[in-house]
Amino acid sequence: MKKTRSPVESRGKISESTVRRLSSYLRLLHEAEARGQETISSEELAERGGTTSAQVRKDLSFFGSFGKRGLGYSVPELLREIEGILGLHRRWRVALVGAGKIGSALISYRNFQRRGFEIQAVFDSDREKVGQVWGSQIILPDEELERVLAENQIEIVIVAVPGDAAQKVVDRVVRAGVRAILNFAPVRLRVPDGVALRNVDMVMEMEGLTFALSSRE
Amino acid sequence: MKKTRSPVESRGKISESTVRRLSSYLRLLHEAEARGQETISSEELAERGGTTSAQVRKDLSFFGSFGKRGLGYSVPELLREIEGILGLHRRWRVALVGAGKIGSALISYRNFQRRGFEIQAVFDSDREKVGQVWGSQIILPDEELERVLAENQIEIVIVAVPGDAAQKVVDRVVRAGVRAILNFAPVRLRVPDGVALRNVDMVMEMEGLTFALSSRE
Repeated sequence: MKKTRSPVESRGKISESTVRRLSSYLRLLHEAEARGQETISSEELAERGGTTSAQVRKDLSFFGSFGKRGLGYSVPELLREIEGILGLHRRWRVALVGAGKIGSALISYRNFQRRGFEIQAVFDSDREKVGQVWGSQIILPDEELERVLAENQIEIVIVAVPGDAAQKVVDRVVRAGVRAILNFAPVRLRVPDGVALRNVDMVMEMEGLTFALSSRE
Repeated sequence: MKKTRSPVESRGKISESTVRRLSSYLRLLHEAEARGQETISSEELAERGGTTSAQVRKDLSFFGSFGKRGLGYSVPELLREIEGILGLHRRWRVALVGAGKIGSALISYRNFQRRGFEIQAVFDSDREKVGQVWGSQIILPDEELERVLAENQIEIVIVAVPGDAAQKVVDRVVRAGVRAILNFAPVRLRVPDGVALRNVDMVMEMEGLTFALSSRE
């Protein structure tokens, strides 16, 4: 496997938390646009985004200069800019591995479609599920994974299989050339450099809450 | 609303990322225990947890001294200790607000039960859903939220309602005295000091991936 630097590293200073804040500014901008608001200050972005206005200005300055002193940022302009930075100015070809309850929730999640994530294939290893129709998708047998990922030039794979099956799925997906994985399985997965991996881990978030509650008692 | 210091602050130096690492060590320990492994080194915890052995030792030293030099940590002992730190040595009373697809995935999620999270009430504002039976739960009308939270002494509320309804739900839950909230709605919620809030945000994780893919192009 060819080793490449992660994109975050190669950009120098863009940390995962910066990217998260950009996502959160984007959300506030969508809300402002829906209200018909034309400009937004760094203070407003900061307050509603749970950070400081200095941080907002610093985050945005990484990517060029937006906004005019005293006038704030133009909502539609900043919105398009952040969408561009996050790669949301285009649609993405996504596949889902694992047609369980979480997969089912994802496939009917309107925000996914709206943000340009198009689930173009769904796989499962369970013979009972293969062939079932989910929205516009027919559930495919997992043997077809490599072929279908390649033919559809899938860019992002969502892994929603049980923990003990997840690493194998990820290894196959990576060998098939996919460079971005969203993992719902409650395990820590290994991917080579150059493959972006994010985890959605509900139990871990719950453990953060029970830690907070416990340390208070 | 009385202002209280957050439990994390009051403990001094335990950051959210430390707590996340503890969760991740715990997972490795569960796997090791399932394999019948008796001891584990900080190197093994580090490597599989994606950190350094110095970090592992530092994280664990916050909470007392575990492990013997050269012998590593006893798997069952360290497992119980971390469970204790994270508050997982007991069961937690949980309620779910929002009986949609995500709620449905959660209620049938075995890892939730297994880790001691007992969903004891489910609410929805949709008259069509109220009265439906989900596992051992009957979906309750959301007007009963405050009463049921109090009567059942619910400790953690999971919010899985649409974005525009989420803040109102959270305000009611907080007024009812709940001090921990897990949010699935794609909005940034405001809670007073002393209330622990964690977010599970799939779209934000996807945006992290599209950022990574885009900055590589």
